[in-house]
Amino acid sequence: MHVLVIGAGGMIGRKLATELARTGSLGGAEIKRMTLADVTPPPVPAGEVEAIDALAVDISAPGAAERLASLRADVIFHLAAIVSGEAERDFEKGYRINLDGTRLLFEAIRLEGERQAYLPRLVFTSSVAVYGAPLPDPIPDDYILAPLTSYGTQKAISELLLADYSRRGFFDGVGIRLPTVVIRPGAPNAAASGFFSGILREPLAGERSVLPVKETVKHWLASPRSAVAFLIHAATLETSGLGARRTLNMPGVAATVADQIAALRRAAGPDAEALIDRKPDETIERIIAGWPKSFAPERAAGLGFSAETTVDELIEVYLADDAPNAAS
Amino acid sequence: MHVLVIGAGGMIGRKLATELARTGSLGGAEIKRMTLADVTPPPVPAGEVEAIDALAVDISAPGAAERLASLRADVIFHLAAIVSGEAERDFEKGYRINLDGTRLLFEAIRLEGERQAYLPRLVFTSSVAVYGAPLPDPIPDDYILAPLTSYGTQKAISELLLADYSRRGFFDGVGIRLPTVVIRPGAPNAAASGFFSGILREPLAGERSVLPVKETVKHWLASPRSAVAFLIHAATLETSGLGARRTLNMPGVAATVADQIAALRRAAGPDAEALIDRKPDETIERIIAGWPKSFAPERAAGLGFSAETTVDELIEVYLADDAPNAAS
Repeated sequence: MHVLVIGAGGMIGRKLATELARTGSLGGAEIKRMTLADVTPPPVPAGEVEAIDALAVDISAPGAAERLASLRADVIFHLAAIVSGEAERDFEKGYRINLDGTRLLFEAIRLEGERQAYLPRLVFTSSVAVYGAPLPDPIPDDYILAPLTSYGTQKAISELLLADYSRRGFFDGVGIRLPTVVIRPGAPNAAASGFFSGILREPLAGERSVLPVKETVKHWLASPRSAVAFLIHAATLETSGLGARRTLNMPGVAATVADQIAALRRAAGPDAEALIDRKPDETIERIIAGWPKSFAPERAAGLGFSAETTVDELIEVYLADDAPNAAS
Repeated sequence: MHVLVIGAGGMIGRKLATELARTGSLGGAEIKRMTLADVTPPPVPAGEVEAIDALAVDISAPGAAERLASLRADVIFHLAAIVSGEAERDFEKGYRINLDGTRLLFEAIRLEGERQAYLPRLVFTSSVAVYGAPLPDPIPDDYILAPLTSYGTQKAISELLLADYSRRGFFDGVGIRLPTVVIRPGAPNAAASGFFSGILREPLAGERSVLPVKETVKHWLASPRSAVAFLIHAATLETSGLGARRTLNMPGVAATVADQIAALRRAAGPDAEALIDRKPDETIERIIAGWPKSFAPERAAGLGFSAETTVDELIEVYLADDAPNAAS
């Protein structure tokens, strides 16, 4: 089996590639070859897969999608995207990478199949940013996609293309709408969602962290480990049960900021909690107010997707997988 | 005021142009100029508008969208599309016309506005084909768009672009999802939905018509006159009440085939009903089974859109507007 990971240099892409290399298999089949692509050459993980190529490729550049499709990988993970903030700042770049890049890839696969029969599994990472206020709590699986950002728009459009290309038999697509990933490893970043990880990660390391919103703010969270597990499950599940709606809301933890802080206190004591500085930021409050609070992801649950159920587990996963001095 | 109608050669486009020319005004403003565009030069209606240009233009051709945007019309009606059946038969053409054509137009307007401030009202005709089974009855305004055709996919994507371009301030967009238009004037056509008009239109003219589905089939109908009224209302309504969700389900008549036949009998007697030949067609039955039965179009009602409420009215409108020997 040949596995292609596009966007293999990002946080989730690196973790996915590492896990695939570690086990050397996917859905019971041996991975004989793996191709890791990103705009700069992604790291090549050690493990059970002998042949791993790292490619520097911009999927929106002429010929790039054709090159990737011509590899005729059995499973393609398409994770490549520029993030929400950048897509909002640079309208043209957002559409070029997140929409045109995706469509060029889908078209290249379709045309590759016209030359010679080809029906890869294609796993696409979408986002809860396809939803925009007003939103019910929880959000059911059949709620309208009405994004409030260009990034969310590009993801929602890609989902529609994924469904149509799958229906037409050009590939076998599965999309997953990732929850906000908590606890993200590494340094704080400038994303509006950054504090959801920061208020846990920094205090766990004995460092101060800013909380810009009220403790009543509720959001939908899953660990990096679960995100990788979602991708692998999406690559191997039986798609006959999916029907025409090819993208699924993923399970997660519906937690308020107060829930997060309580879990931090249980994990690291009141001294850790004291490292959180409450500095309300109206801009971030306003952005977050339009985001999903929780989901009722019944279809995903029925198809065997699962995730953490408490913030305590999210912290445990971080301490085991990613914290400085973590086991792995 | 300058009004541009793209897709002015189609049935609804011609009726819209005729109505605008007849009144010579839109939302209380005088129409000083009207440009009618379609792939072949659309007919130029007589009336109160002195300057009417007819353009032959394929919006997906290089430079065409720029040419249309450079007209800097105050109101743009974008009705151009290839129909469902053709978009399903010819995958590439469907995406080229229905998606690329729309996106090129939107981009050309955005770039025209970069050169010099420009914020036209843009009215886009979408379709209930953005919905696909399983569907509730009635469908609420916040139900997921999950099309089962490439045409529906292209319309749903165009709606997402319309919302994002409007949110970014590139134009002031309003989308309307047209019900199935009944009674369509003219000759029978090959569309799967054709019989909804045919079983009324042909018997009203003393001719036989085939009913390919069961009488329990329910669907969502509006007259051509209402479709034109929707477009004009969409061009003139106050968009501050729309929010980020720029495309609306239109009001209509939820009628079963049995309801249609009963109204035909009331209008033209049992002899007319006897002209309907029941010839079940499994293919058409299966296609129709995935279609919406009815809507609860609360947002549109709140914004002042209205339509017929009975099949009897649909027949009256046809007899007044379109039937051979009709008044207008």
